[in-house]
Amino acid sequence: MNDTLYPLAAMRTALRTVRERAPLVQCITNFVAMNMAANAMLAIGASPAMVHAEEEAGAFAAIAEALTVNIGTLSSDWLTGMLAAATAARQAGKPWVLDPVAHQATAFRRQAVVRLLELRPTVVRANASEMLALSGGTSRAQGVDSRDAVEAAEAGAMRFAREQGTVVAVTGEIDFLTDGERSLRFAGGSPWMPRVTAMGCTQTCVMGAMLAALPAQPFEAAAATLAVFKQAGERAARDAQGPGSFHWRFIDALAAIDDVQPPRAVPERIP
Amino acid sequence: MNDTLYPLAAMRTALRTVRERAPLVQCITNFVAMNMAANAMLAIGASPAMVHAEEEAGAFAAIAEALTVNIGTLSSDWLTGMLAAATAARQAGKPWVLDPVAHQATAFRRQAVVRLLELRPTVVRANASEMLALSGGTSRAQGVDSRDAVEAAEAGAMRFAREQGTVVAVTGEIDFLTDGERSLRFAGGSPWMPRVTAMGCTQTCVMGAMLAALPAQPFEAAAATLAVFKQAGERAARDAQGPGSFHWRFIDALAAIDDVQPPRAVPERIP
Amino acid sequence: MNDTLYPLAAMRTALRTVRERAPLVQCITNFVAMNMAANAMLAIGASPAMVHAEEEAGAFAAIAEALTVNIGTLSSDWLTGMLAAATAARQAGKPWVLDPVAHQATAFRRQAVVRLLELRPTVVRANASEMLALSGGTSRAQGVDSRDAVEAAEAGAMRFAREQGTVVAVTGEIDFLTDGERSLRFAGGSPWMPRVTAMGCTQTCVMGAMLAALPAQPFEAAAATLAVFKQAGERAARDAQGPGSFHWRFIDALAAIDDVQPPRAVPERIP
Repeated sequence: MNDTLYPLAAMRTALRTVRERAPLVQCITNFVAMNMAANAMLAIGASPAMVHAEEEAGAFAAIAEALTVNIGTLSSDWLTGMLAAATAARQAGKPWVLDPVAHQATAFRRQAVVRLLELRPTVVRANASEMLALSGGTSRAQGVDSRDAVEAAEAGAMRFAREQGTVVAVTGEIDFLTDGERSLRFAGGSPWMPRVTAMGCTQTCVMGAMLAALPAQPFEAAAATLAVFKQAGERAARDAQGPGSFHWRFIDALAAIDDVQPPRAVPERIP
Repeated sequence: MNDTLYPLAAMRTALRTVRERAPLVQCITNFVAMNMAANAMLAIGASPAMVHAEEEAGAFAAIAEALTVNIGTLSSDWLTGMLAAATAARQAGKPWVLDPVAHQATAFRRQAVVRLLELRPTVVRANASEMLALSGGTSRAQGVDSRDAVEAAEAGAMRFAREQGTVVAVTGEIDFLTDGERSLRFAGGSPWMPRVTAMGCTQTCVMGAMLAALPAQPFEAAAATLAVFKQAGERAARDAQGPGSFHWRFIDALAAIDDVQPPRAVPERIP
Repeated sequence: MNDTLYPLAAMRTALRTVRERAPLVQCITNFVAMNMAANAMLAIGASPAMVHAEEEAGAFAAIAEALTVNIGTLSSDWLTGMLAAATAARQAGKPWVLDPVAHQATAFRRQAVVRLLELRPTVVRANASEMLALSGGTSRAQGVDSRDAVEAAEAGAMRFAREQGTVVAVTGEIDFLTDGERSLRFAGGSPWMPRVTAMGCTQTCVMGAMLAALPAQPFEAAAATLAVFKQAGERAARDAQGPGSFHWRFIDALAAIDDVQPPRAVPERIP
């Protein structure tokens, strides 16, 4: 194992800072993910606020330390709130994360993501199918679940990160993280993770907390999030007997993590 | 026990096909049920997508293999999306399930269900109070929980199924399934089941997955769903100490089911 | 321990009546809390109905035995439904509870709470930061989590209760309950409680059930709710290993409570 590839010191600072400061993070996420995401945020030590309405989303983004936007159960009025919040976050120089759930499925989602990308998210977190579609490739997924391997999305993710000037995290069996120059892989976790709904959406929210803790280092903040999820997934899997018991054990595991461990498998730089 | 009354071969095919093919099912359900329903869908092997907005619900229904519509937390804009999705499903010949939650409670719900029924659902899943009210009887329930016995709703359910040309599943202590000609009862499950919110709504979504797997045999697909829920309920009840522990054990049990068992008690045909 | 300070007989009547009568309670709550609140309501023995839409919220409030309103994930259309429901509840003489989540965070929320307070809630349940802000003090919280001690909010809560003619419950490490004249403190519970999202929102819904059971004695009904939550929290904490396992154990504990115990620590009257 070669730990030196991971920016462990910064990753540890991100987690420790979340725990110490309990940053206020505005999470505009979907109806499926709301409860799990809020519980994961409390478990990691952050203070989540699910504030989405057009009437206040922008005002709240100016107060919060970071913003996350997830289009899982999108509608026009929620999109208005998302755009207001992302605009306000950008103007205030706050980091924000975009989770373009199933953006390839309908014209409505595709157009929404085009508008959201214009507001320059600090990080884009997606599954492999979503990233393939974002970066001009062909995705096999029609719904919200990925039907492609992360590996197939890596080259497109690097290009997309470079072109958009954003950090990109593609999550799956082996996560891939890149800022267009650097890149890292994260192995570990558990096969139960994709069997629990909203695991990726939840990760997007937690990434907001890590970004709030380490706003000047989004690549490192995203790396901390990926590592912590792999770590909590492994811990939860030890005694889980199915996706139901994995779910709450994962929340327990997030709350119990006291240090960021280097990911389990040997990471490789993309050639 | 007389297993021959149940169409076990087709029921087993439905479950196996869901597991093998992971059908994409559009679930328009209520805010209470969303997370549990999505987790149950993943546990049974399906790929759920909670897509409700007017702007895309119809387009998505054309992609999905089945649709489920549940009016638990209805509002006008959601109703527009439901009607668009059901219309698209019908036009594309995709099966769809209607769950008329508490439709007897207000004029708004009653009128919504009238419009949805015009789009000819493949299956209607309801509790006894809802089915009594649908079929012209008198229901004792004012809210979402049933206050009538399934038995009292059986005759009306058969008539309603015949008149509407739909399959009707009335769930409760002993479930009743009919297509207007045939009918089956399903005993088993657990007294904890009505103590966990959204159990019926979750079943509606899973019924969508079974219909996607067996679109030409809606009666058998619905039968598979009822049997699997009774079976998972029994399994979850073994170690549950309350509704909280029953909830996640039920998800574990759904994921662990490897075959459809014939329902526990002797079923009877309606004379 | 001095049990005589607590109106235990009435508190016990409230719980027993909920268990016996399963009152229908309309809960307009936020997307994060919906599932947990409904499960807690079923666990305590009530029949919850999450009915929020403008088109039916008022009609349903006339049917339900009590109403709860929580602005956690507020938007304009939901506010319309809340106002319709609270107006109908008030006209029908039904008790209702207001939970002014993070009302201090934005102008939109502040104005919504002003309008809701004009409809004279029977009980206001809030955290310390929210109550401080409501009663003209200075709150340190910017989001939904309290950053103040309950003690700091007690004097303002008494004044607010007197001025508004309402019962006020401020929950935190030691809950404070007052009707402007009488007041009680409730110790106990568990440090896990604020680590589980929507615990306070859930308590607001359960308070609706207790009010439905004891409509003429809102102070006592609120006291029963606070005592039961402290009791269930202690029971759940015994075997919990984190917030995930605490969550479902808390639901199990609510379902298992067979009597209201006097709160653990010595309560004091406010001088």
